[in-house]
Amino acid sequence: MTQNITWYNEDQDDHIIQIGARTSIRVTEKLYEKQSDFQKVEIYQTDTFGKMMVLDNCIMLTDANEFAYHEMIAHVPLFAHPNPERVLIIGGGDGGTAREVLRHPAVKECVMVEIDEEVINVSRKYFPEIASELDNPRLDLRIEDGMAYIRNNENAFDVILIDSTDPVGIAENLITVKFYQEVFRSLRNQGIMVAQAESPFYFANIQQKLFANMKGAFPKVQMYLSHIPFYPSGTWSFAFATKEASFDRQQYRKDDLQQMEGDLQYFNEETYHACFAIPTFMQKIIA
Amino acid sequence: MTQNITWYNEDQDDHIIQIGARTSIRVTEKLYEKQSDFQKVEIYQTDTFGKMMVLDNCIMLTDANEFAYHEMIAHVPLFAHPNPERVLIIGGGDGGTAREVLRHPAVKECVMVEIDEEVINVSRKYFPEIASELDNPRLDLRIEDGMAYIRNNENAFDVILIDSTDPVGIAENLITVKFYQEVFRSLRNQGIMVAQAESPFYFANIQQKLFANMKGAFPKVQMYLSHIPFYPSGTWSFAFATKEASFDRQQYRKDDLQQMEGDLQYFNEETYHACFAIPTFMQKIIA
Repeated sequence: MTQNITWYNEDQDDHIIQIGARTSIRVTEKLYEKQSDFQKVEIYQTDTFGKMMVLDNCIMLTDANEFAYHEMIAHVPLFAHPNPERVLIIGGGDGGTAREVLRHPAVKECVMVEIDEEVINVSRKYFPEIASELDNPRLDLRIEDGMAYIRNNENAFDVILIDSTDPVGIAENLITVKFYQEVFRSLRNQGIMVAQAESPFYFANIQQKLFANMKGAFPKVQMYLSHIPFYPSGTWSFAFATKEASFDRQQYRKDDLQQMEGDLQYFNEETYHACFAIPTFMQKIIA
Repeated sequence: MTQNITWYNEDQDDHIIQIGARTSIRVTEKLYEKQSDFQKVEIYQTDTFGKMMVLDNCIMLTDANEFAYHEMIAHVPLFAHPNPERVLIIGGGDGGTAREVLRHPAVKECVMVEIDEEVINVSRKYFPEIASELDNPRLDLRIEDGMAYIRNNENAFDVILIDSTDPVGIAENLITVKFYQEVFRSLRNQGIMVAQAESPFYFANIQQKLFANMKGAFPKVQMYLSHIPFYPSGTWSFAFATKEASFDRQQYRKDDLQQMEGDLQYFNEETYHACFAIPTFMQKIIA
């Protein structure tokens, strides 16, 4: 049993080492490695979780578990919004978030702005199921800087999803007040922004900064949680910011949700409500 | 940064290796190791999570994160029960579950039956905060086999907590129909049993068996979830079985809960409700 076992250890990055805990996945083969203009992109064949994508030494997804992240970043805001016709994804190069967004018939157009074409290319090749909607005619796929794109698109979107890597390195600009103010301006009335917001167990320092900056630009900011095994600690948070202070998440598109539930693996109506219940120590981080 | 880093790797056990994912914790020193009559007991000093207890190569707890498990195994059933006067803990040798149970003034007596005295001894020595209530006069601490104890105590408890190690090896008997039938008989009317029930992401096979067997003995069995970083996948489940089919978890001790909330780190009133919301793929495992 203990022969020929190779572990991919998520411990090459200082911010992982500093946590003092790492995840390792049993792999059989490295299928691909390339330094793109922005980051190191690696693909592994794992033993029990299908293929795995690693960006700058951080596990991004595996075939087996990606649904937990992609369903939760997309469906919570999309069902909370009364009529999400135009959606913007910043990042999300693997295509999983776009796939979930495009399940919604209400969405007339989804713009996806990914800075690193390499991520899109490897996803098309190694993760065809995750990339399956990248050629959907309702998707406007752009290879450019999300920061620049958003500056030029005022009052244009109902939902904006920040599906970025960790806010260290290239993604650090994505948690500034200035960026959030530009997102705010890009949203139409009743608009919602959701951003991946790190683990409350390990990255309280990043969370504090992210939520404080977001509250500097939005009148109402909440947090919700998902269980995601391969992200540090297995618990991942999302910041949920609304253009209106009066936003009420009990006014969701209940009928549409109940109609889609059966097609999903993670998200359901109970989860929609429950994900906003935050353990006490996490509430204190972002208070 | 990368010099002199030592990782404790949770990969010595076949059932962890078979998952294909492991957790590692940065440690500075092994403080203790002993093979007891029942299992291998190890204590490590970690870099960032305080001390860590490992039983038979599985991480049981660290100072930093133990609250997430202990609060959730204890307070959900204890607030769900109208008047939990007598509580039984099977296992729980570290004392964390007893500490949480004894926060409840309603509890007149808590019996804790731990088979392995060694776990109690190391907890007293290395985890004084976790073991802090082991000498509480309301605690009846017994070193004996929980299986045998429960057989001789009919109609004796309001809440029974199965705080065992993974149901492989010594704890395997704790997920049989026969055992659950004996727990059922040991409960008074309106009684509740809660058992730690593994990770839905990795141990679906154990969960299926555990829930099926429990449903063979109890009229109503539900699942609830907690975020626990150092258990495999970071998501841990609990089985919640009630003696009455008519049990309604909305009839909880709301006032008592609101009074205790401020003393806790994880559990709160929102969490009480939300932890029973189960992602769709997990519902299917135990259906």
